[in-house]
Amino acid sequence: MKKYLAEFIGTFILVFLGTGAAVVLGGYTGGTDTGFLGVLAIAFAFGLSIVAGAYAIGHISGCHVNPAVSLAVLISGNMTAKEFGGYVVAQILGAFAGSSILAFVVASSTSLEGFGANGYGELSAVGLNLTGALVIEVILTFIFVLAILGVTTSKATSHMGGIVIGLTLTLVHIIGIPLTGTSVNPARSLAPAIFAGGDALAQLWVFIVAPLVGAALAAFVFKSFFVVKDETGIEIAGESDMSTTRK
Amino acid sequence: MKKYLAEFIGTFILVFLGTGAAVVLGGYTGGTDTGFLGVLAIAFAFGLSIVAGAYAIGHISGCHVNPAVSLAVLISGNMTAKEFGGYVVAQILGAFAGSSILAFVVASSTSLEGFGANGYGELSAVGLNLTGALVIEVILTFIFVLAILGVTTSKATSHMGGIVIGLTLTLVHIIGIPLTGTSVNPARSLAPAIFAGGDALAQLWVFIVAPLVGAALAAFVFKSFFVVKDETGIEIAGESDMSTTRK
Amino acid sequence: MKKYLAEFIGTFILVFLGTGAAVVLGGYTGGTDTGFLGVLAIAFAFGLSIVAGAYAIGHISGCHVNPAVSLAVLISGNMTAKEFGGYVVAQILGAFAGSSILAFVVASSTSLEGFGANGYGELSAVGLNLTGALVIEVILTFIFVLAILGVTTSKATSHMGGIVIGLTLTLVHIIGIPLTGTSVNPARSLAPAIFAGGDALAQLWVFIVAPLVGAALAAFVFKSFFVVKDETGIEIAGESDMSTTRK
Amino acid sequence: MKKYLAEFIGTFILVFLGTGAAVVLGGYTGGTDTGFLGVLAIAFAFGLSIVAGAYAIGHISGCHVNPAVSLAVLISGNMTAKEFGGYVVAQILGAFAGSSILAFVVASSTSLEGFGANGYGELSAVGLNLTGALVIEVILTFIFVLAILGVTTSKATSHMGGIVIGLTLTLVHIIGIPLTGTSVNPARSLAPAIFAGGDALAQLWVFIVAPLVGAALAAFVFKSFFVVKDETGIEIAGESDMSTTRK
Repeated sequence: MKKYLAEFIGTFILVFLGTGAAVVLGGYTGGTDTGFLGVLAIAFAFGLSIVAGAYAIGHISGCHVNPAVSLAVLISGNMTAKEFGGYVVAQILGAFAGSSILAFVVASSTSLEGFGANGYGELSAVGLNLTGALVIEVILTFIFVLAILGVTTSKATSHMGGIVIGLTLTLVHIIGIPLTGTSVNPARSLAPAIFAGGDALAQLWVFIVAPLVGAALAAFVFKSFFVVKDETGIEIAGESDMSTTRK
Repeated sequence: MKKYLAEFIGTFILVFLGTGAAVVLGGYTGGTDTGFLGVLAIAFAFGLSIVAGAYAIGHISGCHVNPAVSLAVLISGNMTAKEFGGYVVAQILGAFAGSSILAFVVASSTSLEGFGANGYGELSAVGLNLTGALVIEVILTFIFVLAILGVTTSKATSHMGGIVIGLTLTLVHIIGIPLTGTSVNPARSLAPAIFAGGDALAQLWVFIVAPLVGAALAAFVFKSFFVVKDETGIEIAGESDMSTTRK
Repeated sequence: MKKYLAEFIGTFILVFLGTGAAVVLGGYTGGTDTGFLGVLAIAFAFGLSIVAGAYAIGHISGCHVNPAVSLAVLISGNMTAKEFGGYVVAQILGAFAGSSILAFVVASSTSLEGFGANGYGELSAVGLNLTGALVIEVILTFIFVLAILGVTTSKATSHMGGIVIGLTLTLVHIIGIPLTGTSVNPARSLAPAIFAGGDALAQLWVFIVAPLVGAALAAFVFKSFFVVKDETGIEIAGESDMSTTRK
Repeated sequence: MKKYLAEFIGTFILVFLGTGAAVVLGGYTGGTDTGFLGVLAIAFAFGLSIVAGAYAIGHISGCHVNPAVSLAVLISGNMTAKEFGGYVVAQILGAFAGSSILAFVVASSTSLEGFGANGYGELSAVGLNLTGALVIEVILTFIFVLAILGVTTSKATSHMGGIVIGLTLTLVHIIGIPLTGTSVNPARSLAPAIFAGGDALAQLWVFIVAPLVGAALAAFVFKSFFVVKDETGIEIAGESDMSTTRK
């Protein structure tokens, strides 16, 4: 149960601070605002939430805080289907807790509004259409999950996992915020969409399906090509340390 | 005594450079200014102050530089009540030294003003009310302290503590600056409020009470659920390294 | 073949997210726009692409994702000419895949345009002429590759290679974006120039030749002066850890 | 001689990319411009120059790239007076090389000007007077050098030295850029002042004297209070890892 509590808290941190930064800084409004001033700050809010969460509760649950990440871990054979179910429930509950507190903060202020929901079409700051949104979410999640699988595979780098994964989440947000608001995480999208309702809710399926597809693709590619095994066939840690630039 | 000197210097660094960046960059004015341009820079000033302090004096005192952090360490059983008292006194003196030098720098310039005090209501850039301010400070401190306890528990990650804790402080500032100016640290709030006086001083209790409550909650949650013990019941280092995503 | 697939994916990540951030954030337009607001965000997009790539596929191929880097590794004697050829082909294909997807995203939006091509003269945001562009690209690549060779040489620091190299790429972009858009990577320049055509294509040779020259210079300097050998003449890891400030 | 070549290259990197970013981004103009938009980007340019330099040439010379840092190392007893002299000469020559190339780049553009010189009074963006400038440069250098001595003392953290020191340099620039342009490094100030001439040159002594005083103070404080010795009196590595928050 400690694992599920950890995932609840971790996802709460991510959703409250990530979507909260988007709401507070107003870098994007889930609308057609093209004021990109806050993009880097919001991107760091999402990414550094993973840094905080990874070192706070990573030793308990691995700090997935994302059903797409848990799916990749499941496909990689490092978690049971039952554990997967528990993780996802905990993540969704944590995300709702995060959006609920954000809604309270918004209601406690005189000038804030919105929930940081994802969107495409008129809800995209650059008017990205449905197909574009699907493609971008699949690709950004693929990149994000590939980095997660790589850095956590090696003992030599796993202690840096929180920082590397957090910075990678910052990376995909820099480009993704003006496009779709960046999901790459069904739990992060679910709660804000339900709070926001309307078009955001109608578009929600995109931000559930595309991240899961991207994560599954990453797990498949990583497992097929990038796992290093020793001579007895045991899966071993890759080096993940760039030292392969030297023999 | 070296520990107390270290805490004095560390808190001086945090308050002078953190609140100093807020004053110099004018990202928020403790008022209703909604110019968010400086938020990320100020957030990095606070966070990187911890990076600098942790590696400068962390080997002497642990670089708490925050009575709320020291309270969490006390509750965790890793510091005596007497040490706690000494730490807090040193932190408060360091914060006053920081605000004093900042006041001198402001007086030495032609265009600077203010002390980077925290506030709610009319002193919040987004008009956050009292209840909202209490909630946000409790939650942000809870997250901050949970990350501190996690990263310093494990031998595998403690050498990265300064960077992880610093980036987490940056994180909570990204969302907190427009809301309350972000305290999460009674010593950081005390000195600027006394220098500023007026409403900032009248609101000071919020930024003393809420961080202490948030830190105590984090210590309780971490101790109850997230400490890993070996088979003999000895508290051991958690892995804190995301490697639990693999069996 | 796994190495080539890894380089393909890594270069795809770099070009899609790096030039994609430039297009989406509009920090520079390959033209005379002097709106520098997006420079830091774009610089982080390029740099963090290396962080993501290094930990995703670095254990397979070293994550060169840049023909200039591969040239330096070849000159350093750590890769065969045949491998070099394969790496460069994979990098070019990956870059074209990145630009193709970016073109698709641009076409799927209502307000995006361009491909993030490099340029000088009227294509430089500050009107940098040809000679200036050649000099800046040689120097920026020299610095970038010198840091790569240093950090990957030492066992003590190679696990941090991805972060150090990524931050160094961010560094050279901060100054380079307004000057030339920053190449330091022939593969990164090739695909966008071909997509953009016109002057960008006519100027392409600069961004192929100058990075290769800068990288070769770095490899020569590093090999000549900065490789540390043990008493038997075997090339050993340098310490790369600043501890030489102490005896 | 390799050490001196390393210091030459390292200081070249710092001055060219740091002051170059200031010139190119125009975040401050050595004048009364209060456009603080570029502050964070410039602060990262200076800081990440240390990251690049530390891992490129730190294993050869320790990457001081700053006479004030070398003075602190000399006072700490880890370098001879003769070495100190050689380092300072190499640093000054490297700084002139950096400013020379920057002058060439400026001359090769249609819209750039200036050399990133430091200043006070009318040359300070916020009108900081002479006394304020002296105080701020002493304090910022004290903090910077204290972090350097702390992180390089411990074997456990010295491999992270480049990142910690670089981020600390970013930190002091966030507050220092609008105040004095931030020196904390006599070599960084010397070359631009000579290129700029006029008031910048007349004010140069401040940016030579104050950093040296701040560095000497840091070395004295660190040596007196923060060096940890083992039972036989041998100076040993401090832990610098925040693990002292636990017994």
